[in-house]
Amino acid sequence: MLKYVEIADKMEAWIIQKDLAQGEKLPKLAELMELYGVSKSTIVKALEKLENRGLIYQVQGSGVFVRRPKRADHVNLIDNNGFTADLPTHKMSSKVLTLRKVKPSKKVQKLFGDPKEVYEVRRLRYIDNKVLCLEESYFRTDVVSYLNEQIVQGSIFNYVRELGIAIGFSDKYLAVKKLDQKTADLLGVKPADPALTINEIYYLTSGEPFDYSTTTYHYENSKFFIQSNA
Amino acid sequence: MLKYVEIADKMEAWIIQKDLAQGEKLPKLAELMELYGVSKSTIVKALEKLENRGLIYQVQGSGVFVRRPKRADHVNLIDNNGFTADLPTHKMSSKVLTLRKVKPSKKVQKLFGDPKEVYEVRRLRYIDNKVLCLEESYFRTDVVSYLNEQIVQGSIFNYVRELGIAIGFSDKYLAVKKLDQKTADLLGVKPADPALTINEIYYLTSGEPFDYSTTTYHYENSKFFIQSNA
Repeated sequence: MLKYVEIADKMEAWIIQKDLAQGEKLPKLAELMELYGVSKSTIVKALEKLENRGLIYQVQGSGVFVRRPKRADHVNLIDNNGFTADLPTHKMSSKVLTLRKVKPSKKVQKLFGDPKEVYEVRRLRYIDNKVLCLEESYFRTDVVSYLNEQIVQGSIFNYVRELGIAIGFSDKYLAVKKLDQKTADLLGVKPADPALTINEIYYLTSGEPFDYSTTTYHYENSKFFIQSNA
Repeated sequence: MLKYVEIADKMEAWIIQKDLAQGEKLPKLAELMELYGVSKSTIVKALEKLENRGLIYQVQGSGVFVRRPKRADHVNLIDNNGFTADLPTHKMSSKVLTLRKVKPSKKVQKLFGDPKEVYEVRRLRYIDNKVLCLEESYFRTDVVSYLNEQIVQGSIFNYVRELGIAIGFSDKYLAVKKLDQKTADLLGVKPADPALTINEIYYLTSGEPFDYSTTTYHYENSKFFIQSNA
């Protein structure tokens, strides 16, 4: 992991652990450098990262301030950490519907640049034992070479990171629709009930896509937030 | 406007105008410094800003690359530019339903820190003459001191920026629901049809909130995207 990302993670953990409120001022640059034992440029880059994550804001000539803590029951649409990291105060669980290697569909093939096979993972995800969403994912097997039932029961992203695979960024496309009978049955709602569907492409830090997924959310059990500073 | 934001805007305009594709490499740092006539630190900060906006990705030791162009028919959920800037290839228009100064509700009062009055603006927004959304906004009158019918027909954010007011960041909360009769009528859909609702709080660069809005989207006429790198 890059040094400044490591420092950003530490600072984020510190802000959350201290439960700092919106508008609280962080220590000055020099203090942060001493506190974490790193250079000025590493602190500056770590702060940019935290700003990017929506955790702080910087006021020219005035200092660095905390942004309102994330709402614990909302899915964060900006970070790329997965639910398990997003929703730490909730019990997250999964029911695995499908786990197998398949030949990719034309769409996935085009996206991934012609891989011979992909892992197909279909899961129902639960938040505090209530259905949160249906997730259908495709992973390139030349990046994620091994998955089993136990791994996909938990956080696939944590597993991937532990393998040393660096997740870089993601494209997310959102739309609202009325559910078909089959998906409604899986989510435990009625056909034609509303749902938010998110199509996501996850890229490695090298810029290569490695995960394509479609997630359909139970409209009563899901809320989302974005802390933007672009 | 901060120098590096100005350079970031210029580089963004250049990428869009050149219609660069995903994976295309940008000129080296030294070339960019010469091209824009600014220091290394300004270029570095401008690139961070563009990374933040999802327009580029940086690969350690390899260079800076373009991310897939924004989908022209999707509402960008990360930037804070408003629809008029987001959807440049579409004809955006508004029908003003309400424009008046009112005493703020308890909720808005609490958020804004007890202002005496706020502008209430309710608009139907159209994309290519189809209803995109119903938008209900409250602006602090001590920040946005004057609005009229002509201004709120267009982009309020462009107007605000022209006044020299610096918009910093925003919190967005999303949920999917079934529409009530009144909102459904305004959007031209049926009661109980689905909708995405986004509650947004916009802050000045100083960290002060100045705009609170609730936007309810026509589910068939709206699509959204997020390019995340957090």
